[in-house]
Amino acid sequence: MKNYRFEIAYDGTRYYGWEHQPNVDTIQGKIENVLAEMCKADVSGIDITSSGRTDAGVHAEDMTANVRLDTELNEVGIRDYCNQYLPEDIRILEVREAGERFHARYNATGKTYRYTIFDGPVKPVFDRRFYTPIDERLDIKKMKEAAAYIIGEHDFKSFCGNPKMKKSCVRIVDKLDITRDGGYVRITVHGTGFLQNMVRIIAGTLIEVGLGKRLPETVKTAVEAKDRQAAGYTAPAKGLMMIKADYN
Amino acid sequence: MKNYRFEIAYDGTRYYGWEHQPNVDTIQGKIENVLAEMCKADVSGIDITSSGRTDAGVHAEDMTANVRLDTELNEVGIRDYCNQYLPEDIRILEVREAGERFHARYNATGKTYRYTIFDGPVKPVFDRRFYTPIDERLDIKKMKEAAAYIIGEHDFKSFCGNPKMKKSCVRIVDKLDITRDGGYVRITVHGTGFLQNMVRIIAGTLIEVGLGKRLPETVKTAVEAKDRQAAGYTAPAKGLMMIKADYN
Repeated sequence: MKNYRFEIAYDGTRYYGWEHQPNVDTIQGKIENVLAEMCKADVSGIDITSSGRTDAGVHAEDMTANVRLDTELNEVGIRDYCNQYLPEDIRILEVREAGERFHARYNATGKTYRYTIFDGPVKPVFDRRFYTPIDERLDIKKMKEAAAYIIGEHDFKSFCGNPKMKKSCVRIVDKLDITRDGGYVRITVHGTGFLQNMVRIIAGTLIEVGLGKRLPETVKTAVEAKDRQAAGYTAPAKGLMMIKADYN
Repeated sequence: MKNYRFEIAYDGTRYYGWEHQPNVDTIQGKIENVLAEMCKADVSGIDITSSGRTDAGVHAEDMTANVRLDTELNEVGIRDYCNQYLPEDIRILEVREAGERFHARYNATGKTYRYTIFDGPVKPVFDRRFYTPIDERLDIKKMKEAAAYIIGEHDFKSFCGNPKMKKSCVRIVDKLDITRDGGYVRITVHGTGFLQNMVRIIAGTLIEVGLGKRLPETVKTAVEAKDRQAAGYTAPAKGLMMIKADYN
């Protein structure tokens, strides 16, 4: 039994998120089924842990995970076996043996997510699953002004999608970049960790600012309020991409 | 009644090609239905003509078409009406009034197609609908050697997918570039016009050369044979993209 580190890419469009659930397709469920087959083990004995659990419809460019496996296959053999049997919207990019104590969630020291919007008049066809279409042009300057109120260490309760959250909502967002490339507006956020729906609520709030529906200063108030009602809407899942997690 | 020039992008994955057919979804059928609705006309009176008829599963980055319409809407209004009612895998990029005699097929003086292959060990997830996966690494040098035999004015009967073709198969291919970018191998072809499946048969033949299944010189023989059996297989539709047509 060895501990392996996996790097995984997926198009989350047709999945009910990362975490396995009965009777629906999830990324974790698909991968664990293939690994169980590979190890000729019962699936209940296979437990792959990712750096974070993405919601239904959210994508990942490079999701790190770890899993303990008993197999004769080497690292490339494991990767290729998985890719042969996984659906083509989930790919194992790399498999490496990891230290016995490596844990993809607990050892992650930071994470990068990117939220993509397209606000031009004609929406691109080929990457349409990976951006959120917006019909009016966003004011990026105002969005950047608003973003400044989010950067830093805050209690992000206003940006937490779980109303029953009992634990601390204090997180550090140390980077929040907004760039425009033609009609593409990309919000790239880096932090120590994120609450449920946090990036999508940040994106939704910034979209409201960009559309002129709220002033940048209201984002300061929203952070301070520690009340979900004070922040903006939860932007759609399809625009969100997990980029990568950091490890020491 | 004015003649309009349309520029159209589409993801052909779920369509039975450009040309309308009863009881199945086609690009032409979808667009004509929306235009008929827009003009409050019967769909039998709407006839949009493209520079070429793409096969089922083939995509277009910029397909030029023309259509005569009786509408009060201006060019942007027509574009936006179409995009509002078309499925999101078909987008009207631009609408312009064209001269009365402009004909997207007859006036096209040349066309560019691109065929995309991915031959790396881990297939990319996000653009998976737009390339053909190949499991072994292609020898690009050999493919370029073979491509030299295709360039020029030839009777391309060996590269015609229609066995009942009665008309001349003489065409000019004046450009056939093969490039590699990581695992992506792109075959870009420009010519005066193309026979049915011609680009896919050129791609299939070059793939066979790249895999070492046939020697580059056999492509010379294949051209000379004027016999479909002498050329390679028809590469899958999903890797093919109509790039653009040229007009004077």
